[in-house]
Amino acid sequence: MAVGKGITSALLPVAGVRIGVAEAGIRKANRKDLVVFELAEGSSVAAVFTTNAFCAAPVHVAREHLAAATCRYWLVNTGCANAGTGEQGMVDARQSCASLAQLASVPASAVLPFSTGVIGELLPMERLTAGMPAAIADLAADHWLRAAEGIMTTDTRPKGASRQLLIDGKAVTITGISKGAGMIKPNMATMLGFAATDARVAQSDLQDLLSLVADQSFNRITVDGDTSTNDACMLAATGQSGCVLSPASPHWPAFAQAVRELFVELAQAIVRDGEGATKFVTVQIHGGGNSDECLRAAYAIAESPLVKTALFASDPNWGRLLAAIGRSGIPALDTSRIDIFLNGVQIVERGGRAAAYTEAQGQQAMAPEEITIRVELARGEASETVWTCDFSHDYVTINAEYRT
Amino acid sequence: MAVGKGITSALLPVAGVRIGVAEAGIRKANRKDLVVFELAEGSSVAAVFTTNAFCAAPVHVAREHLAAATCRYWLVNTGCANAGTGEQGMVDARQSCASLAQLASVPASAVLPFSTGVIGELLPMERLTAGMPAAIADLAADHWLRAAEGIMTTDTRPKGASRQLLIDGKAVTITGISKGAGMIKPNMATMLGFAATDARVAQSDLQDLLSLVADQSFNRITVDGDTSTNDACMLAATGQSGCVLSPASPHWPAFAQAVRELFVELAQAIVRDGEGATKFVTVQIHGGGNSDECLRAAYAIAESPLVKTALFASDPNWGRLLAAIGRSGIPALDTSRIDIFLNGVQIVERGGRAAAYTEAQGQQAMAPEEITIRVELARGEASETVWTCDFSHDYVTINAEYRT
Repeated sequence: MAVGKGITSALLPVAGVRIGVAEAGIRKANRKDLVVFELAEGSSVAAVFTTNAFCAAPVHVAREHLAAATCRYWLVNTGCANAGTGEQGMVDARQSCASLAQLASVPASAVLPFSTGVIGELLPMERLTAGMPAAIADLAADHWLRAAEGIMTTDTRPKGASRQLLIDGKAVTITGISKGAGMIKPNMATMLGFAATDARVAQSDLQDLLSLVADQSFNRITVDGDTSTNDACMLAATGQSGCVLSPASPHWPAFAQAVRELFVELAQAIVRDGEGATKFVTVQIHGGGNSDECLRAAYAIAESPLVKTALFASDPNWGRLLAAIGRSGIPALDTSRIDIFLNGVQIVERGGRAAAYTEAQGQQAMAPEEITIRVELARGEASETVWTCDFSHDYVTINAEYRT
Repeated sequence: MAVGKGITSALLPVAGVRIGVAEAGIRKANRKDLVVFELAEGSSVAAVFTTNAFCAAPVHVAREHLAAATCRYWLVNTGCANAGTGEQGMVDARQSCASLAQLASVPASAVLPFSTGVIGELLPMERLTAGMPAAIADLAADHWLRAAEGIMTTDTRPKGASRQLLIDGKAVTITGISKGAGMIKPNMATMLGFAATDARVAQSDLQDLLSLVADQSFNRITVDGDTSTNDACMLAATGQSGCVLSPASPHWPAFAQAVRELFVELAQAIVRDGEGATKFVTVQIHGGGNSDECLRAAYAIAESPLVKTALFASDPNWGRLLAAIGRSGIPALDTSRIDIFLNGVQIVERGGRAAAYTEAQGQQAMAPEEITIRVELARGEASETVWTCDFSHDYVTINAEYRT
């Protein structure tokens, strides 16, 4: 059960990136669960990782390797998060990089590891390592969709998008994939996101760009408020298109905008496929005194179990919206100035039920799969947008039965 | 579906308190929905209210009246929260006090109003007022249980408790009731709690005591993290036992402890009857650097949808516990020092699965209806306890269908 369409157009190859996918049987047989990205020599690589203090072994090792060497490979497994695995988890994450590095004739630190799946179990190193040759043999430029399938866990469908720009007569491509459906409240990153462009961008510029767009995309979604232990989001720039870009380039704004749009699409795809989701919900807060208070109100709404169950029921329960804003911790909040709109229908006017509002209007506004909740705080000029989904029986079913 | 036993012993009358209950048809017919408490002249009255900025009209009026006059009556209705009702809501709350005051021959400000139920609808003033004479006629000292039934909304059973102490040869009684099942994360108060003692306690001492015990009881529970708009918790001291107490009395510690125990029982009763609850969960955080970081960890666990659905499934999913602590915002948290115990079974040792732990032990520890999650942070001497319940299909059903 996911909201709206899945991947809406072809995932375009990015020159300088090849992808191999294998079925290593990490947790289940006959399932793509091992993905290898190969980046051309000379690629820049930027990364953002989870801020969860309890972060997984591969996150530690990826940070180390990224600081130590030029990155050439991303090694991704599903089925096991290698989190909460202590020293052995670190040993396994390093060993998995070393094993791939040996097959690829690069230093171990040129490989970054990523894992997603069940927390607290050790990587099945034998099966993981045994799967690597098949993944290497599978390397090809047009395997982005296979990779999007290969990184799925409780996801019901693959997630990916492409953008293409013409810059100085050269086609520049940006393609990315993402995964995640539960334990989703990224903070600096998402569950897993991998993107690449064939533009040439210096590493520091690429990192600045990734940090910025991740903040406007993956860091603005929540399914259940639970920040994952394994969040990681990667952006590579191979330079193979011959197009060289920097913030000083006249084409930078268009390029940055295309990357931002791609990331927003990838982030929204996670919410659309949120565990048990039947609604895709955009929470827009306008008129805040600053960005922080807009985000407080937005997340209080987006994470309220009462709001989310009302959304599941298509119930225009504006009292729960106001109650959520009221407890969000905005200092000296005057709720009598607040207006709220559901898909354009004004439901709250100056802190109470809007005079012209009828229940029939509310029912109609809540009927679609896609709901925009717009809140006007009337305190200032700041605004923020957060994306979320509803809370359904299936969320409970999925998460009560995930390990069984 | 509630966890454990309901009221376990008789609710003892408190000299100087009479209670009347009526069926006013506020929202549904043939249902106790109007409760009047009458306090003897000379009673001290203490109160704590919701900190939700979007607080209901009766909360505003109760605060006003408490500041203006000696309190003699508490007027409680269910079925309608009179929240988000703007100016008309304030007019109605004041008018309902005036109507009862006229029947009782006291000033309107001697009446405090309390409402609970659906947000955003106006009080049906005609039915409310029409029900008052029956409530007044019903006034009796032994109606605490009737009152506990009369303040229920989505509660599946009444909640109340009594304590009795012998002080200087005089019996001192404390009795209280509470209500609430959803929109429960009290902050300075609970959904609704009413308690009284026949000791004589000066108003300022009584207020200090109430603030303290509310903080250790109602302010340590959460069902869904949603702080209500109508939370209020009252404590009256009638003095009719002839026993005079103050913090300087040798008996004060025993009295304060009895009040605290009563309030903890009332608060826990709300969690035991939490919407859809199948587990009653105690989250104990030990070894914190300070109280604040203990509470961060405790609430991150207690409000995590992933932890709560795992509890529903009786799944000893310690990875979700560590992930919740990891995202709770404790500065410079070293997760490799954390130990976690489930009903006494060590499941996490130094941030990973405990060496001696087996899945069978975990399953056994999670089987009971009552679960204690004990976390050792190994950072200092502070500790905190929070009570919560699990997240079940019935929570979704109840809150998706509440208005329909």
